Amino acid sequence: MSDSPAYDALYRHNRRNYRLQHATQMLQWDSATLMPPKGQEARAEAIAELEGLIRGFNADPQLTAWLQAAEQETLAPMQRANLRETRRAWQEAHAVPADLASRRGIAGMRCEHAWREQRHRQDWEGFLANFKPLVELVREEARYLADSRGLGRYDALLDLYEPGLRDAEVARLFGEVRQWLPGLIRDIGERQRDAAPIAPQGPFPEAVQFALAKDVMRGLGFDFDAGRLDLSSHPFCGGTFEDVRLTTRFNENELLSGLTAVIHETGHALYNMGLPVDWRDQPAGLPRWGSIHESQALLFEKQVGFSAAFATWLSPLLRRHYGDQPAFAPDNLVGLLQRVSPGFIRVNADEATYPAHVILRYEIERALLEGEIEAEDIPALWNAKMVELLGIDPGADYSRGCMQDMHWAMGLFGYFPGYLLGSMYAAQWFAAIRHEQPQIDDRIGQGCFDEVIGWLRRHVHCHASRYEAAELVVVASGESLNPDYFRQHLERRYLER
Amino acid sequence: MSDSPAYDALYRHNRRNYRLQHATQMLQWDSATLMPPKGQEARAEAIAELEGLIRGFNADPQLTAWLQAAEQETLAPMQRANLRETRRAWQEAHAVPADLASRRGIAGMRCEHAWREQRHRQDWEGFLANFKPLVELVREEARYLADSRGLGRYDALLDLYEPGLRDAEVARLFGEVRQWLPGLIRDIGERQRDAAPIAPQGPFPEAVQFALAKDVMRGLGFDFDAGRLDLSSHPFCGGTFEDVRLTTRFNENELLSGLTAVIHETGHALYNMGLPVDWRDQPAGLPRWGSIHESQALLFEKQVGFSAAFATWLSPLLRRHYGDQPAFAPDNLVGLLQRVSPGFIRVNADEATYPAHVILRYEIERALLEGEIEAEDIPALWNAKMVELLGIDPGADYSRGCMQDMHWAMGLFGYFPGYLLGSMYAAQWFAAIRHEQPQIDDRIGQGCFDEVIGWLRRHVHCHASRYEAAELVVVASGESLNPDYFRQHLERRYLER
Repeated sequence: MSDSPAYDALYRHNRRNYRLQHATQMLQWDSATLMPPKGQEARAEAIAELEGLIRGFNADPQLTAWLQAAEQETLAPMQRANLRETRRAWQEAHAVPADLASRRGIAGMRCEHAWREQRHRQDWEGFLANFKPLVELVREEARYLADSRGLGRYDALLDLYEPGLRDAEVARLFGEVRQWLPGLIRDIGERQRDAAPIAPQGPFPEAVQFALAKDVMRGLGFDFDAGRLDLSSHPFCGGTFEDVRLTTRFNENELLSGLTAVIHETGHALYNMGLPVDWRDQPAGLPRWGSIHESQALLFEKQVGFSAAFATWLSPLLRRHYGDQPAFAPDNLVGLLQRVSPGFIRVNADEATYPAHVILRYEIERALLEGEIEAEDIPALWNAKMVELLGIDPGADYSRGCMQDMHWAMGLFGYFPGYLLGSMYAAQWFAAIRHEQPQIDDRIGQGCFDEVIGWLRRHVHCHASRYEAAELVVVASGESLNPDYFRQHLERRYLER
Repeated sequence: MSDSPAYDALYRHNRRNYRLQHATQMLQWDSATLMPPKGQEARAEAIAELEGLIRGFNADPQLTAWLQAAEQETLAPMQRANLRETRRAWQEAHAVPADLASRRGIAGMRCEHAWREQRHRQDWEGFLANFKPLVELVREEARYLADSRGLGRYDALLDLYEPGLRDAEVARLFGEVRQWLPGLIRDIGERQRDAAPIAPQGPFPEAVQFALAKDVMRGLGFDFDAGRLDLSSHPFCGGTFEDVRLTTRFNENELLSGLTAVIHETGHALYNMGLPVDWRDQPAGLPRWGSIHESQALLFEKQVGFSAAFATWLSPLLRRHYGDQPAFAPDNLVGLLQRVSPGFIRVNADEATYPAHVILRYEIERALLEGEIEAEDIPALWNAKMVELLGIDPGADYSRGCMQDMHWAMGLFGYFPGYLLGSMYAAQWFAAIRHEQPQIDDRIGQGCFDEVIGWLRRHVHCHASRYEAAELVVVASGESLNPDYFRQHLERRYLER
């Protein structure tokens, strides 16, 4: 007989949810990669049905009694964390009426599916027809979440993706970055003015990019017996922890953009693959979403993937797949990878201008959610902020402007700040890795990522959701989030070489 | 206000089930086509969870009251059929304990997944380790089903796939075939003794076979905006009615085996795509599984696909994809398509020997289910019956013997008879099509399948599950199942040319 029957009942409840989420995850991955167009309506309904069931289980009155009883039971620390996370999910489930959540889910699926075609046609008006009602539903949902916790609407959304994160903290950190970022970009621009790396000669056929990407993923530690790489209109890391479905897109004229997207998503994938196996189906076994998850991706993409050491490893791989070119020399690759140049596309942005893309989205979505602007205002505001932050204007080309990301099209607001916070966490992790292994550049140059993965496994992955982000960073690195690591990293890489 | 509230409640219940089945269908398709091996355990659990939920909904005591109340409501004929089919599902759900059904589901997934590798290694012992407990669970399930209807165990399984079908009828029809089949095969052998069609010169690369298969599917009327073709170890037609997922396999040394499998599955797909759209999510809107569904596949594969008219259309298609070869001449293709030769693999069998493959499986699975033999007896019995019926012996090569089909590995028993009954129905449908359009051969030769599809849409597809098979055949063709059409078809095609 178990002496924690209420906890055990919650455990089974969580396991059932995990299994149903397996289905929604896979159906979502399928609709983004393979599904033929006429499958969309029935797919949206099937996913909404599953999400409704999960919400129904989470709203079961029996849970309230189990949660109260389990809080009196004797539990190990990880079980206690699991109970805390279970209660958190319960609170979220009780905050939003089931019908509203269901309508928001369907509206998000519909809007995102249509967006995949609309952005190529610059069809902002068509997009608005789906997007405006979606924004209304998200605002309504945020209002319920906010009321249940005494938070602001945007705070309530931030808290969904990163428990404990508040807009005031984001505003403070981002305000700091806004102070030094323009000067840094200018200084780098001056240093790089006369450097002109040799341009790679394309085309780079999709099939070859695909094979190279899989080689790089394998090198970084991605287990193809427990995951796949496929194509979608926007790269993402989906699937389950047992079966990670990574996707990307390739531009045949570009050598590196598809590859760096794959490296980014591989960082996400390695986190999911590195979670403690025994806790996979429980809330405490989840990865920390938001900035911690992004930090895993950005560590691999930017700390590792943009380094001179990585270029040393990548150079012969490129030669093997494409034949030799002067552009593939390691020094020249460094020039290409570390080229700082304001551009329109966030996922292709270099490290120094990337924060500007995040700050822009943060400022717009915050205003949109708080009702200070409406969806129609986005294009003009987007372009004005692009000029202000990076000095470039996408004009009426929405596909490289406000229609480039899938987040808003899916109804995902409050997620973007995690990308910049993630850059900060990534810099902090990599500083700790370098501290533990001062020869880390040599190791990466040899294509050995054991020390990188090992540190992350021991200090981040193994904890899953045992701690909230603010605690985790202290447990993992010995101090709170310190944005100086990020600034120092940029200065060292771009101004001191 | 609706004046059929109980029926409406059942309607919503059915629609929810359909949406959850969408998920299980897609997850099953994915595990057979794309899923990496380490995803298997979690996938099996997710599918079992969904199936358990559906069983739970079907076992809801509220349904009993709704069914009784709806039977007193004023309903249109299709609604009444829907109510009958809903009650039928309810009876099935009540016959088998939920726990048993769940264990059988998991055991079937596990056995089938392992089988995919085991059959290549001829690992009968490894297979037995999963298969024996699966057989026990199926027997137990069959006993419950049988008891609930006062049927025999095998009758109860037959009835699952084809309501109203009884073993006595199968035994009578198959017994009749056993009388004339050996003589027919012998006579055809004599006529074909001196005919030696020119062999096609391979290899036929998988990618080219794939492209050709898609062309043929498109020609037959498959809508690629509402479905896909992918690879799996065993061809099947999965997915949903809105998004049909057809799979096949290609042997690079064979010109026609992969293609005929695709044509077969396309027949299944066209049935699913042709069902009345408004009824898709209701039991009365389902296709008639079992022999009626098989008749759609066999009509396209064999009545149409093996005909001289089809060879006329296929010949230039083959030349376009592979370049020219003497073997691609229409007359020679007819020789290849209509070659009768006892072989080991059911799905590659010609029309005349195909019934023997079905009779063999029927006799073994019937005995296995009734407890007259055990799983260990299958290989010896299989080989003995192959010798008896077709004069050939697969020996210890289980991959071309008793491990070739996925049906038993999945726990699917009682399904095989439908393949031969399906051949009989297909011959009856095609005779009706020819009666309506005497120039049907010319039309097929021109690559026009409108009359074939049109007749099936009007006489079979549009009825979905409004009628049971025995009524449907009368409604569609004006008479009961008449096996003479099948025999006449074989004699005309193979002995009178």
